[in-house]
Amino acid sequence: MKTYLDCIPCFFNQIIRTGRLLHMDEAVIMDMLGEFGASVRDFRMDVPPPRTAVALYDMIARHTGSDDPFRQIKEESTRTALSFYPELRQQVKESASPLGTAIKFAIAANIIDFGVSAEFDMEKEIKKVLDPSSFGLWEEDALIEAIGRAKWILYLGDNTGETVFDRLLMETMDRPVTYAVREGPIINDATIEDARAAGIDRVARVISSGCRAPGTILELCSEEFLRLFRSAPLIISKGQGNYETLSGTEAPIFYLLKAKCKVVAGHLGVNVGELIITARG
Amino acid sequence: MKTYLDCIPCFFNQIIRTGRLLHMDEAVIMDMLGEFGASVRDFRMDVPPPRTAVALYDMIARHTGSDDPFRQIKEESTRTALSFYPELRQQVKESASPLGTAIKFAIAANIIDFGVSAEFDMEKEIKKVLDPSSFGLWEEDALIEAIGRAKWILYLGDNTGETVFDRLLMETMDRPVTYAVREGPIINDATIEDARAAGIDRVARVISSGCRAPGTILELCSEEFLRLFRSAPLIISKGQGNYETLSGTEAPIFYLLKAKCKVVAGHLGVNVGELIITARG
Repeated sequence: MKTYLDCIPCFFNQIIRTGRLLHMDEAVIMDMLGEFGASVRDFRMDVPPPRTAVALYDMIARHTGSDDPFRQIKEESTRTALSFYPELRQQVKESASPLGTAIKFAIAANIIDFGVSAEFDMEKEIKKVLDPSSFGLWEEDALIEAIGRAKWILYLGDNTGETVFDRLLMETMDRPVTYAVREGPIINDATIEDARAAGIDRVARVISSGCRAPGTILELCSEEFLRLFRSAPLIISKGQGNYETLSGTEAPIFYLLKAKCKVVAGHLGVNVGELIITARG
Repeated sequence: MKTYLDCIPCFFNQIIRTGRLLHMDEAVIMDMLGEFGASVRDFRMDVPPPRTAVALYDMIARHTGSDDPFRQIKEESTRTALSFYPELRQQVKESASPLGTAIKFAIAANIIDFGVSAEFDMEKEIKKVLDPSSFGLWEEDALIEAIGRAKWILYLGDNTGETVFDRLLMETMDRPVTYAVREGPIINDATIEDARAAGIDRVARVISSGCRAPGTILELCSEEFLRLFRSAPLIISKGQGNYETLSGTEAPIFYLLKAKCKVVAGHLGVNVGELIITARG
């Protein structure tokens, strides 16, 4: 997906929201807006937005003096998500369609995204995902069938905390899974360390994609990841960032996400806020 | 009112929305975003947002090659508003409180603002203004009393089209009124020419404030306007732009507006979308 004009004001909003979330001074946030503003002229609109987001969040990290400013927030997200885990695992087990329910919970957890909003209500989102009126594109049966057929699955993670719900889905899938995460800290996206904190390593092999962007930019991924990507019989891609960067790629991908902004919703042909399972990239 | 951090992404949104409204090429809009982005470093945050908006809309005008790119849209707004006029005048006449109803219609018309949105529904807004649950700060009785006491009134206009509803209110007030408008074209704000097209000159003396900003920046106003401003027993100020620039000024002002963005709503202590009559600047 390319970058749309509407992504540009959104980048500025991300700087303000992140700056406030990290308790940065208003003057420092203003400096960042100025610095980022001066770079708008050089934006490449033919690349997906997560490519520009790398420069944006690197700038924020530089101003905080930390290479992982979201570390504490990520640890909290994992703790909170783990507190939901036993109850949700029980619900999955008792469900008429355990796999369908685990898929739904994994999508609900895509709400944990500090790149889009600092406020979300996990319990509300779990209720929402059990209500079919929240679904935009909803190819759940096709996904369940694809999981049943796949010898192994490449699973592309997104946010920290969401990882716990991915783990529940991977346990329920009962298939060998390789779980790929970001190469380094970016926003609250999961790294290998964050995936381990969620217990993912108990149910899947955890690897880095080799790419530091909040998405999967194939030109920036490692050879190891690309070999898996090219040979995987099924790829489950979580979240907007992976969708924005992989949309249009020829591969057996199912995208699981919440359409969080009007640009992505427009690209998918759904309404903002709708929950999505689709193989149409 | 000062400029808030949140005003900055909003400026970028205004460029995109205006560019699309004026059917400008995407590449030209992108050029404007780059040009404006490079100026963020020099923003003065201690001045009201309409001061920055002058540079923004001048840049847009330069790229369109017209000094009044909203002319056609303004003419349409006036025509549409005039088509509502006879019916609304009748409603005012038959109302239990003609002045109260005329005030409400004048506030409803503040929705006609291409700086904030290109889409609005006048009929819906008229219904809304007759429903007290839409009111935030609602000092209608105090305003009616102040009008009754005032020997003459200085009325600060805002958008073209809204002018027609201001005219209805001025007719109903039955007081000598001086109606002040912008010095030159900016967004869809009314100029002397636009005020005349709405028939304002039949019910008030029309003058320019001397200021070209989409608001009333006193340092930029003419001596003639300032004399009136300082001596007026009552000033009726329409819209966000006039509120943003005059808030905090010592003067007998009633602000009539719709709180259209979260920054102004937050400054007023109301919710976005609420309708306001207040003497508390």
